[in-house]
Amino acid sequence: MSTPTGLPFDDFRNLFSSLPGADNHAAQQVSERDAQLTKPAGSLGKLEDIAIWLARWTGRKPAVMKPLVAVFAGNHGVAAQGVSAFPPEVTVQMVANFAAGGAAINQICATNDLGLKIFDLALDIPTADFTIEPAMDERTCAATMAFGMEAIAGGTDLLCVGEMGIGNTTSASAIYHALYGGKAADWVGPGTGHDAKGVELKAEVIERGITLHKDHLGDPLEVLRRFGGREIAAMAGAILAGRMQRVPVIVDGFVATAAAAVLYAMDATACDHCLFSHVSAEPAHRAVLTRMEKEPLLDLDMRLGEGTGAALAAGIVKTAAACHSGMATFDEAAVAGKA
Amino acid sequence: MSTPTGLPFDDFRNLFSSLPGADNHAAQQVSERDAQLTKPAGSLGKLEDIAIWLARWTGRKPAVMKPLVAVFAGNHGVAAQGVSAFPPEVTVQMVANFAAGGAAINQICATNDLGLKIFDLALDIPTADFTIEPAMDERTCAATMAFGMEAIAGGTDLLCVGEMGIGNTTSASAIYHALYGGKAADWVGPGTGHDAKGVELKAEVIERGITLHKDHLGDPLEVLRRFGGREIAAMAGAILAGRMQRVPVIVDGFVATAAAAVLYAMDATACDHCLFSHVSAEPAHRAVLTRMEKEPLLDLDMRLGEGTGAALAAGIVKTAAACHSGMATFDEAAVAGKA
Repeated sequence: MSTPTGLPFDDFRNLFSSLPGADNHAAQQVSERDAQLTKPAGSLGKLEDIAIWLARWTGRKPAVMKPLVAVFAGNHGVAAQGVSAFPPEVTVQMVANFAAGGAAINQICATNDLGLKIFDLALDIPTADFTIEPAMDERTCAATMAFGMEAIAGGTDLLCVGEMGIGNTTSASAIYHALYGGKAADWVGPGTGHDAKGVELKAEVIERGITLHKDHLGDPLEVLRRFGGREIAAMAGAILAGRMQRVPVIVDGFVATAAAAVLYAMDATACDHCLFSHVSAEPAHRAVLTRMEKEPLLDLDMRLGEGTGAALAAGIVKTAAACHSGMATFDEAAVAGKA
Repeated sequence: MSTPTGLPFDDFRNLFSSLPGADNHAAQQVSERDAQLTKPAGSLGKLEDIAIWLARWTGRKPAVMKPLVAVFAGNHGVAAQGVSAFPPEVTVQMVANFAAGGAAINQICATNDLGLKIFDLALDIPTADFTIEPAMDERTCAATMAFGMEAIAGGTDLLCVGEMGIGNTTSASAIYHALYGGKAADWVGPGTGHDAKGVELKAEVIERGITLHKDHLGDPLEVLRRFGGREIAAMAGAILAGRMQRVPVIVDGFVATAAAAVLYAMDATACDHCLFSHVSAEPAHRAVLTRMEKEPLLDLDMRLGEGTGAALAAGIVKTAAACHSGMATFDEAAVAGKA
């Protein structure tokens, strides 16, 4: 995508002026058919909203034939600051666990008939420690976003984005702090299982990072490259690719939402094709979703990442599409309408 | 079940003194294995609670091999009072729609691989109008509960209970009013789609029923038979049968919860083997669940009935069981634990 003379981010900046809009005609057709289905109007609640959302962003009747969960894995220089309860080698070990079928996301995909692809992002080259220097240079960040855009290249009609990366709740919290201000403590939480002292350490590390990069927080793409990580950059690319190719996207939890938040900060309509699967047990997640004016579908106290919340939501999205497309109308079923 | 000399409800009353308890040993084994699975402790949130709940009430490792949605359909004499936005013949028409595969519940079961059985309860003989006389005599109510107990006779390891019956939100609201007091207006809502005037009418009809039966509201089984309907009595039987046979039960929405509420009023532990699938958009449902100290799993603005919320929750329960049983442990996957 890059041009020989421009800066690496230029192509991405240009994308935001050409985001495809909603297909309101397709959405209207779903609303009209919905009114004829054998149920009281509105009685399927959010399942009806989901059917309309699918039509709005695909331009077709609601159908989910090839759902895909894309999990992006990256390593973080900032992990050296002791910000995670788990050691950094767990990232590569969990990628092996994904490949062997032993992780939570494998079981959720198997139960709900979802495809699963794992994208590991230079795991032997962690991003730089953002308390010392930017996590990535612009070229690396742009290349990683472009790599993330390839997630849908094999074809999918519903993309779930998730992640794995020891240290990445710290990157996500730093991104939220950079985008939304306040104090670092407003945006940090236990992650994989820190106690109060560990959470304090995370806040202190983030505060140092924010101080170092304080003159560059006005540009969301700068925020992304300075705090990382690669998996967040790749998810941002994947979400954008979904928009460009008319593939609706389900965003997983606390860390995946950071990718969406960067896009939202670039353009408040950039995530209109996204469903936010759940509110994480990570305490700041609800505040982030509120800032983005997004309503999470589920609230199950989950905080695992790996795309687990998005995959669970995908099961509900599949069901919503099946209800809309498979139900009989009042006429077809010879059921009397409202008196 | 009835004895020649006793009253029809006697066997049911006796059941409450012999309800099987939880298998805390099986639950403990799930907790211990859960702590070894390749994820931060607690990070699957309610999915972990569900795995423990399955073990507690089956006495086995979490597994859902033969889930069943049982939908009970009944007709209501009180429908003659104009309490529903739909005409009474819709009950039998919707049963035909279930058989033909055209309803929402059919699509949800197909998408989530759930068995579906429809039990129609003497649809050509509506219960009596509870504003004039009790909806059922004791023998009919007890026989209907016993019929409901047969729902699991074909074998299942996860029972979802749901219903269909024009007029049955009025029965359910009357039961809640009888059990919990207050005013009728506290327990009524739009049902299939009433406007404010229709809701007022429902409250007025219920108030008349409560006045008529006011000397018999201290006994929950009397409340059940006086306000009906057959499908609520059958669901109460089905829920009890699940308890007796160690089959965990998922309770659907506003009307199905009325069956559970009757059992809960008999014995506050009688629904401990039940998961409450969702909070209905019917306004009083949350207050009812609070009275029963139950936390709903989902909140999707659904208010269709038919077992649709329970079936959606069953998909999540299946996933929770699969996560617990299918995930690798830290040792098996050679993943490093918490530092």
